[in-house]
Amino acid sequence: MVELSLIGIGTGNPDHVTRQGEAAIRAADLILIPRKGAAKSDLAELRETIIAHACDGTPPRIAHFDIPERRTEDGYLQGVEHWHDAIARAWQAAIAGETPSPRRVALLIWGDPSLYDSSLRIFARLDPRPLVRVIPGITALQALTAAHAIPINEIGAPFVVTTGRRLREDGWPPAANTVAVMLDGTCAFRTLPPADYDIWWGAYLGMAEERLIHGPLTQVADRIEATRAAARADHGWIMDVYLLKKRPAAPA
Amino acid sequence: MVELSLIGIGTGNPDHVTRQGEAAIRAADLILIPRKGAAKSDLAELRETIIAHACDGTPPRIAHFDIPERRTEDGYLQGVEHWHDAIARAWQAAIAGETPSPRRVALLIWGDPSLYDSSLRIFARLDPRPLVRVIPGITALQALTAAHAIPINEIGAPFVVTTGRRLREDGWPPAANTVAVMLDGTCAFRTLPPADYDIWWGAYLGMAEERLIHGPLTQVADRIEATRAAARADHGWIMDVYLLKKRPAAPA
Repeated sequence: MVELSLIGIGTGNPDHVTRQGEAAIRAADLILIPRKGAAKSDLAELRETIIAHACDGTPPRIAHFDIPERRTEDGYLQGVEHWHDAIARAWQAAIAGETPSPRRVALLIWGDPSLYDSSLRIFARLDPRPLVRVIPGITALQALTAAHAIPINEIGAPFVVTTGRRLREDGWPPAANTVAVMLDGTCAFRTLPPADYDIWWGAYLGMAEERLIHGPLTQVADRIEATRAAARADHGWIMDVYLLKKRPAAPA
Repeated sequence: MVELSLIGIGTGNPDHVTRQGEAAIRAADLILIPRKGAAKSDLAELRETIIAHACDGTPPRIAHFDIPERRTEDGYLQGVEHWHDAIARAWQAAIAGETPSPRRVALLIWGDPSLYDSSLRIFARLDPRPLVRVIPGITALQALTAAHAIPINEIGAPFVVTTGRRLREDGWPPAANTVAVMLDGTCAFRTLPPADYDIWWGAYLGMAEERLIHGPLTQVADRIEATRAAARADHGWIMDVYLLKKRPAAPA
């Protein structure tokens, strides 16, 4: 392998793919795809749709690999490191099984390869290490703000992007008025005093199943939690993301 | 007008456009384009290239409008509010001049309409107010991290996105390890103690003129400032963005 392309494909709408992403798919001579779990078969189908759109009938070779289980007994960061080691071995095994040996390998990355994605860290474990090319894709945050038709920032103001785990463990970030939360499996917004915040929430962003809820946290937190649980039971998986803004203080 | 589409077009590479963006361009019956200033004619050409790619020879109607001058004597936020009022009037005048009256109007937005962009706030001033549709696009931040082939975040860790003005006025955000800086006309990283930070800087991201510099701030700050000044003099304009990360503390 001489080059590995990490191609951001957006969040579930096959039309999130860029012209640059489509060109990189066409240029690949092997595409690595994680094997479908039962629950995530709609994600695997999405990748196939995107490849078919890009290649117009002559798709490149595809090799499937199994994503190893993530062990949790080592603590969070250690567990992630071991998991990345194991995924790197799975990539190398899948590539080594291909004849003729591919020169340009591509992976289709949910969202953008630079935002809460492990591919660049897994790539760094490959030996020998190929060239890497990163092709940006639409993130869940952008799909969220587009679906709600809102700006993420106030005029000229900063914002924080964090994870559910960090919001739960560290609380509201100091000095922040706007916080976007990703990778939250457990409704971490529940740990905040609800009267102080508005929320814009979205799940399955860009997909036919897209769900959107927004309003004062006091009014919509229960509905988000119930919607989330029901949708997860229906589909077998859920991906959601939300934006929180501090409410202006009430006049004294 | 019944619908206004704000279409994110990425940061200078016409191949940043998504399939969704191209479909929205084709569906428009009028595209509003800011009139070229002498300095920014390459940006106007980029919009034309994107429209030509999307429409394959049969482009929709195009109406040009002048972007009003921003007045600075009223203070920053007040000045921005008045400027948005004036741009909304310019949009309405450009649309009113078209016969037959367009039903679906589109604007091509640099980057993503939800990130440090005024279009949604200007849209909110239109009277009567049409439906709005936001189509996400690749942001300068994504083009930066893709070009440097780096993740924006540490594993599971938060980051702050801010502006040059706020970094200069407020200093390093409390508790942050990673800060992305946009809209910085004056090298605000110069206000930080350089020994504490690494920087990944990029200008003209995605374009043929792309410039990238990264390293410890002590080693590259002068070079970034000089490169920036020379490039701005050459091109007549510059757009740049950077990522700062706190360096690990030296062992005692």
